[in-house]
Amino acid sequence: MKKLTILGSTGSVGTQALDVVSHLGNVRVIGLSTNSNIRLLEQQIRRFRPQIAAASDEKAAAALKVAVADTNTKIVSGEGGLCEAASFGDAGAVLTSVVGSVGLLPTCAAIEAGRDILLANKETLVTAGSLVIRLAREKNVKIIPIDSEHSAIFQCVQGGGDIRRVILTASGGALFGKTRAELDGVTVEKALAHPNWRMGQKITIDSATLMNKGLEVIEAHHLFGVPYDDIEVVVHRESIVHSMVEFADNSVLAQMGVPDMKLPIHYAVCYPERIPSATPRLEFSALSRLTFAKPDTDTFRLMPMAIEAGKSGGSMPTVLNAANEAAVAKFLSGKITFLQIEGMIENALAHHKKIENPSLEEIIALDRGIKEALA
Amino acid sequence: MKKLTILGSTGSVGTQALDVVSHLGNVRVIGLSTNSNIRLLEQQIRRFRPQIAAASDEKAAAALKVAVADTNTKIVSGEGGLCEAASFGDAGAVLTSVVGSVGLLPTCAAIEAGRDILLANKETLVTAGSLVIRLAREKNVKIIPIDSEHSAIFQCVQGGGDIRRVILTASGGALFGKTRAELDGVTVEKALAHPNWRMGQKITIDSATLMNKGLEVIEAHHLFGVPYDDIEVVVHRESIVHSMVEFADNSVLAQMGVPDMKLPIHYAVCYPERIPSATPRLEFSALSRLTFAKPDTDTFRLMPMAIEAGKSGGSMPTVLNAANEAAVAKFLSGKITFLQIEGMIENALAHHKKIENPSLEEIIALDRGIKEALA
Repeated sequence: MKKLTILGSTGSVGTQALDVVSHLGNVRVIGLSTNSNIRLLEQQIRRFRPQIAAASDEKAAAALKVAVADTNTKIVSGEGGLCEAASFGDAGAVLTSVVGSVGLLPTCAAIEAGRDILLANKETLVTAGSLVIRLAREKNVKIIPIDSEHSAIFQCVQGGGDIRRVILTASGGALFGKTRAELDGVTVEKALAHPNWRMGQKITIDSATLMNKGLEVIEAHHLFGVPYDDIEVVVHRESIVHSMVEFADNSVLAQMGVPDMKLPIHYAVCYPERIPSATPRLEFSALSRLTFAKPDTDTFRLMPMAIEAGKSGGSMPTVLNAANEAAVAKFLSGKITFLQIEGMIENALAHHKKIENPSLEEIIALDRGIKEALA
Repeated sequence: MKKLTILGSTGSVGTQALDVVSHLGNVRVIGLSTNSNIRLLEQQIRRFRPQIAAASDEKAAAALKVAVADTNTKIVSGEGGLCEAASFGDAGAVLTSVVGSVGLLPTCAAIEAGRDILLANKETLVTAGSLVIRLAREKNVKIIPIDSEHSAIFQCVQGGGDIRRVILTASGGALFGKTRAELDGVTVEKALAHPNWRMGQKITIDSATLMNKGLEVIEAHHLFGVPYDDIEVVVHRESIVHSMVEFADNSVLAQMGVPDMKLPIHYAVCYPERIPSATPRLEFSALSRLTFAKPDTDTFRLMPMAIEAGKSGGSMPTVLNAANEAAVAKFLSGKITFLQIEGMIENALAHHKKIENPSLEEIIALDRGIKEALA
């Protein structure tokens, strides 16, 4: 019986992870968490009977405590509560599907406690990749990615062999093919209309700006130890090929599947085994065609900006990520236009004096400072 | 230093294998063989200085002996000589790139001597797959496929995981899209004009009839232990995706590369390592599109006929293969039309009384009997 804690269990990946757990039937849920969606968390507590549940929002936690007083689940709150849930009990793995750099401290707490990390929270690796990877190595903890692209790469390298190049596929997002002028008037609704994937709001906006692909390049760099110049992004509108690895001999392995987050979640939960999933099969005879093209980095400038921040290293990716989280939140609440997201991030990077090897404390302070300044 | 014997070294795969050996620089050639192309074999002997060289044709062997009398290479002849070369010295692996079921006995000799088999001679597995796989298991010998499709599958399964389905890609061959009426008048020249792969004559005709894909289904069944119903053939005109594996969880891995036989040869020679090859890289941004479609089994009837023979089992695949070798030879020499290939094989299968578990001797006798009867 596998034992699993899910942080961010009321979000898009979190709810799908619980669907996977239900399908598998042999996974015990140790802990759950939400930011403030206690109505859904209560249902999850009653269904999965975790030992601990956290609500980041203090008021929500207090209300939840009352609501589930008849259960055996311990309710904790705030950032400390999230970290307690991350390291609680005897979970073998912690699935981190919280959104944003708020995942950093609980991820570190889980690693410190020796839990494998099923990582659906890319911002943690973007903001503090070097530190997190080093800590995971020290603690002999596996990081199994859930992002479909990184799950694909992870699956492709299971057979061993030196990596020459990683080819990340990009759907192009909701605004593929648009000009700069057209981007100017993009509404929240339009930016949220992703053609292939159903995901949370923040990542869907990141997909529309192509920032998501830039963040994924940084994530891939840390997860697989591949230099930035050996990571290529290719637009693949159909989202069937989830990413590829070119090996030293120029042979390429690709992982494919229907565009359904439950597949990489299922893979990560079952790893290293492959167990029948609820995800539909790919029908090749019905595929007809798969297309590949260069991304339009003249129109979508956040992807190259993110990669530059990654290459620059030090505290630059922390600034990039914090400014992006702040800007996306502002766009979603209607306070800035779509193209102003780009401007805010560019400005934050331009005015930052890089710290070469930031500590965890410096990263957290920097992340908070930028978010407050841009809020 | 790896030590390698190459059977069929003057053919298409054989000469490319020697190119790979030259590129790698750390492989010692122990043995070589030809049917009768002693001019080329002499050059290869002078360049690679093998300990032994075989010519199947007795007269050719006698002439070769005189020609290379100044070298230290032992010259042997006939079927016995081929088997001697296959097991000679301390080669770690034998690359079998002879064409047709003539490869069966030398392959068995190499396995008996404990050599790993780098298999480019699919007819051996078609005609006697169960026996050869059993023998390889007994002798703890690896069979590493060189057929691009099977190399792809082999690469995809290196990371482990239960196979649910094998998806073999087919270029469609030189006559893709033709009607039955059009096939009737196909010349040897037209049938030899393969769109993507440069290969020997026999396999190029097999590609044109789609028999090659049927033989590959039988080969995949034996190599990977996959039931026939779990092997699907998909037409993929671009020959970039060399084949795919669907795992138990419905995740698919695909191997891709430029259509160049040197890549699977290089992979097999270097296995389990991946070492830089001379094969060009795939450029994804330049790929533009990959297409997939169902094969036209109404027009190209040899593929389903081959799969039926494989499913029927026993001596049926032996008959299928022998009749095909005889028919293709007749077509290449202008004695029958393209569509008569099909008729000859169908007829041979219809008139054969199946032997359920044929011995090696029965298989060899049957193979010879059919080839003589159809010559």
